[in-house]
Amino acid sequence: MSENSGTRATLLVSCPDRTGLVAALASLLSDHGANILRAQQHRESLNSMFFQRIEFDCAGLDISREELESLLGIECGRYDMEWKISYGDQPKRVAIFVSKFEHCLSDLLLRLRIGELNCRVPVIISNHPELKSIADANGIRFEVFPITKENKQDQEQREIELLNSLEIDLVVLARYMQILSPTLIGAFSNRIINIHHSFLPAFVGAKPYHQAYERGVKLIGATAHFATTDLDEGPIIAQDVEACSHRDSAKDLVRKGRDVERVVLARAVRAFMDDRILVNGRRSVVFE
Amino acid sequence: MSENSGTRATLLVSCPDRTGLVAALASLLSDHGANILRAQQHRESLNSMFFQRIEFDCAGLDISREELESLLGIECGRYDMEWKISYGDQPKRVAIFVSKFEHCLSDLLLRLRIGELNCRVPVIISNHPELKSIADANGIRFEVFPITKENKQDQEQREIELLNSLEIDLVVLARYMQILSPTLIGAFSNRIINIHHSFLPAFVGAKPYHQAYERGVKLIGATAHFATTDLDEGPIIAQDVEACSHRDSAKDLVRKGRDVERVVLARAVRAFMDDRILVNGRRSVVFE
Amino acid sequence: MSENSGTRATLLVSCPDRTGLVAALASLLSDHGANILRAQQHRESLNSMFFQRIEFDCAGLDISREELESLLGIECGRYDMEWKISYGDQPKRVAIFVSKFEHCLSDLLLRLRIGELNCRVPVIISNHPELKSIADANGIRFEVFPITKENKQDQEQREIELLNSLEIDLVVLARYMQILSPTLIGAFSNRIINIHHSFLPAFVGAKPYHQAYERGVKLIGATAHFATTDLDEGPIIAQDVEACSHRDSAKDLVRKGRDVERVVLARAVRAFMDDRILVNGRRSVVFE
Amino acid sequence: MSENSGTRATLLVSCPDRTGLVAALASLLSDHGANILRAQQHRESLNSMFFQRIEFDCAGLDISREELESLLGIECGRYDMEWKISYGDQPKRVAIFVSKFEHCLSDLLLRLRIGELNCRVPVIISNHPELKSIADANGIRFEVFPITKENKQDQEQREIELLNSLEIDLVVLARYMQILSPTLIGAFSNRIINIHHSFLPAFVGAKPYHQAYERGVKLIGATAHFATTDLDEGPIIAQDVEACSHRDSAKDLVRKGRDVERVVLARAVRAFMDDRILVNGRRSVVFE
Repeated sequence: MSENSGTRATLLVSCPDRTGLVAALASLLSDHGANILRAQQHRESLNSMFFQRIEFDCAGLDISREELESLLGIECGRYDMEWKISYGDQPKRVAIFVSKFEHCLSDLLLRLRIGELNCRVPVIISNHPELKSIADANGIRFEVFPITKENKQDQEQREIELLNSLEIDLVVLARYMQILSPTLIGAFSNRIINIHHSFLPAFVGAKPYHQAYERGVKLIGATAHFATTDLDEGPIIAQDVEACSHRDSAKDLVRKGRDVERVVLARAVRAFMDDRILVNGRRSVVFE
Repeated sequence: MSENSGTRATLLVSCPDRTGLVAALASLLSDHGANILRAQQHRESLNSMFFQRIEFDCAGLDISREELESLLGIECGRYDMEWKISYGDQPKRVAIFVSKFEHCLSDLLLRLRIGELNCRVPVIISNHPELKSIADANGIRFEVFPITKENKQDQEQREIELLNSLEIDLVVLARYMQILSPTLIGAFSNRIINIHHSFLPAFVGAKPYHQAYERGVKLIGATAHFATTDLDEGPIIAQDVEACSHRDSAKDLVRKGRDVERVVLARAVRAFMDDRILVNGRRSVVFE
Repeated sequence: MSENSGTRATLLVSCPDRTGLVAALASLLSDHGANILRAQQHRESLNSMFFQRIEFDCAGLDISREELESLLGIECGRYDMEWKISYGDQPKRVAIFVSKFEHCLSDLLLRLRIGELNCRVPVIISNHPELKSIADANGIRFEVFPITKENKQDQEQREIELLNSLEIDLVVLARYMQILSPTLIGAFSNRIINIHHSFLPAFVGAKPYHQAYERGVKLIGATAHFATTDLDEGPIIAQDVEACSHRDSAKDLVRKGRDVERVVLARAVRAFMDDRILVNGRRSVVFE
Repeated sequence: MSENSGTRATLLVSCPDRTGLVAALASLLSDHGANILRAQQHRESLNSMFFQRIEFDCAGLDISREELESLLGIECGRYDMEWKISYGDQPKRVAIFVSKFEHCLSDLLLRLRIGELNCRVPVIISNHPELKSIADANGIRFEVFPITKENKQDQEQREIELLNSLEIDLVVLARYMQILSPTLIGAFSNRIINIHHSFLPAFVGAKPYHQAYERGVKLIGATAHFATTDLDEGPIIAQDVEACSHRDSAKDLVRKGRDVERVVLARAVRAFMDDRILVNGRRSVVFE
């Protein structure tokens, strides 16, 4: 989906459900020469909210992007729609946060190199220097912000400034072993994806694989979710599991878990790149 | 999805892709008070065909069903669309064909009893008498048509007559151990679902679990597909697998496979009940 | 594994680990003509306990079963082993507890009919009369013990007496919607298998599918475990999951979950029938 | 399992089944102070062959490794056993063959760096120069052997010489896009692991993902197997699948398949490192 997306645009909307929503946007777009390639809707019965993703080809547009956005603003205003448009020729800009574990980082960079992810990575940020060589080998800037209890607020402020100056769209916490403060989370609301190494809500908090080992579960998992100020409670984007057994030590679970973490995090990042995620309170809509 | 479907209708369309298709039908429906609950599209790049499923609520329709269908006929005609409409208050009518294995039949009947499948089963047809007691316990008519090389043509003719007289929408081959003739298949084109006990196209033909055992595969599977005159070659609707190992004898594979067969067949039947399947040559579109 | 088990025996042992354990039992058995068909060991690093399962063919035994057991008692005593022996020609006796949901019960009975489970089911016990017809159709005694706060202790006492009089080896709680008292649990320690409709330890307690829906998880699961006095905390025997998405209502999760519950419960019951489960505190060893 | 394996040894044996095999080796080992950590057996009913893997701790051995091997030679001779012993402090030596796709190579090197695979990689061999920088970044020798129809025999001869001079135990074909000649395959019989990008035996030969797309399967897979002179027919070591749908283009299948290829190949290589694979004709025994 990420590939060959030169003339593609994606429109995400959400609003209280009412009759005529699908027709309204479909008509607006096709009236101006946009060819709808894919349209997905979801109506959440829990709170009667409506969510839609429309992927369309701009090649035949008879108006400019600015004019289209202006028309969308008017139409969406009529329906109290929140909306967001993205263009395939404007890849998102991603900052990856890491600590000492390299598996998620290396996996994302591999996917980037072979063209699986339509994005740019202007910076890798860490609280430790260990993974610098990986950033170097990929020609990516690597910034170390050591965090202590005393300097945390200042360091995060500097991180926010760096992220803003680099026009970052998404922060990926690729096994970053620091809890972000509400300030940083608030600055990138629903734009920070974390990978938690358990099948949430089982085993919140520290050392989930050891918790899993002691509980004797027969599957271990990983969860990618948006970071919120409630730790491990943000909207879940992707989850997966792997079978385990009595034979697996806690160390084996850590090893098996790494494979799940990698795949689940990449799936979530890819969904964000493709503008397939909408947040609905504690739940997320992730179109395929 | 099958539940509470009293005022729901589902429209399935397919046609060569062109601009405006999504808007055209969305507008027609909403102009007449239909609330679109879910709309799914697919554009097949292989042959530039467009497929759409629209699920809508008829409660607010300001015209009759007949009038709606008449308008749809005109609109779909303009776009060379093939189309089909179903109503939630008109459950489909299903005939189940079996031989001697009961697991798929019992599984389907369990799902029917507990309300998972929105359909009627007016008849179970078999070439053997063994499973009559199961039909009896569920209060379903059971007809035995013993098949020999000599009588096959006649028996199938009688079966077709029975199916027609009962206004059957779908034939389910629930481990029916007879190859259907082109006549019967042609009479119910894309309306016969078969469960093959392998991960097609691996292990076509007879005794797939024994083939799988000898080949030493590490996963066994099952495939639900529309029956066509090319044996085991019809459009695939659903597939799944289960892990196996050197410890599993051919008999173990048969046992493990039964669980996969049941789930896969039920998934395909349910997709048909919900009007989520469209056929595109050798491939199928199965909306979620 | 359950099949053709006429002359098979299975020995389960557990003890503190030390050198020579594997050789000791293997020698004893083969010295008396037992052919070891399969031997599985596990050493738990957590507490240095050793677990072993030996499946052997008794056909060539040059001593009686009683003599063998007497020798095993002596040998196992030397190593502080707990041990238990079972014979394939003495199928276990199972009581199934149900309430109003039939899917787990019907699934187990299907497996019983087609020979997947090497056991007898002398009784189905329920706190409601609804599922009597299913018991009847399978020719199994059905006993109703309505439970109220007032009569619970008495009714459970009567249940224990019935279970004992029928020489029940295993109690299966097939979606039995009553919490068992410590008395009943204590009377069948590590011999009561419950199916919980979530991926434990996520969503303990009531209405787990609704909890899962509200939390927005992307997988739902089921867990078979031994019932203990700590609700939902007993040793886990089997778990599995199924993918879900924003499209699934709580009702859809209930439906999808039924398939997982059935498979997971059957897997656990089968493991018990085959004497493949050993308990190690909160964890279980489940040999394949 | 690979970790902390300093004093561990692993014995693999296979022979025609007969009474006393398990006891014979267990006694020999424990008589000389070896502590058996894990013992796994398999009896193949197809041909009455017996397979065993014994993992033991050498720390308490009261004889030398050479003396132990000498005693094993005598004992195994009595039972017509083929046998092989490995020591945890002698990591296997692996050559990785690649062409232009980097995903399997990068994945294996990541696992090597973070200690998941207990092996050495003295050389990466390719028929193309493209992936040299990855070898360089990991400090591994990279040798290019361009292959043409004319020079194939000579180049392979040079490869064999290089592999022998480096004392290579295992060749991994990590998406190496050349068919090996019988000479090379014969020189490393059951020591060449290939990853085929389909769920074998479905889609043998070229472009399996495109075949899968055209057939419209709902799962795509990958298979790790020993390379034999019958292309895609060698004993299967590991397989896995990933769900796909009508939405996936052939290009999407290629992308999804990469994840499966990586995991399946790593699983097979790890099993080889841990001496868990035994070959039985067209089938393999892979202990967990």
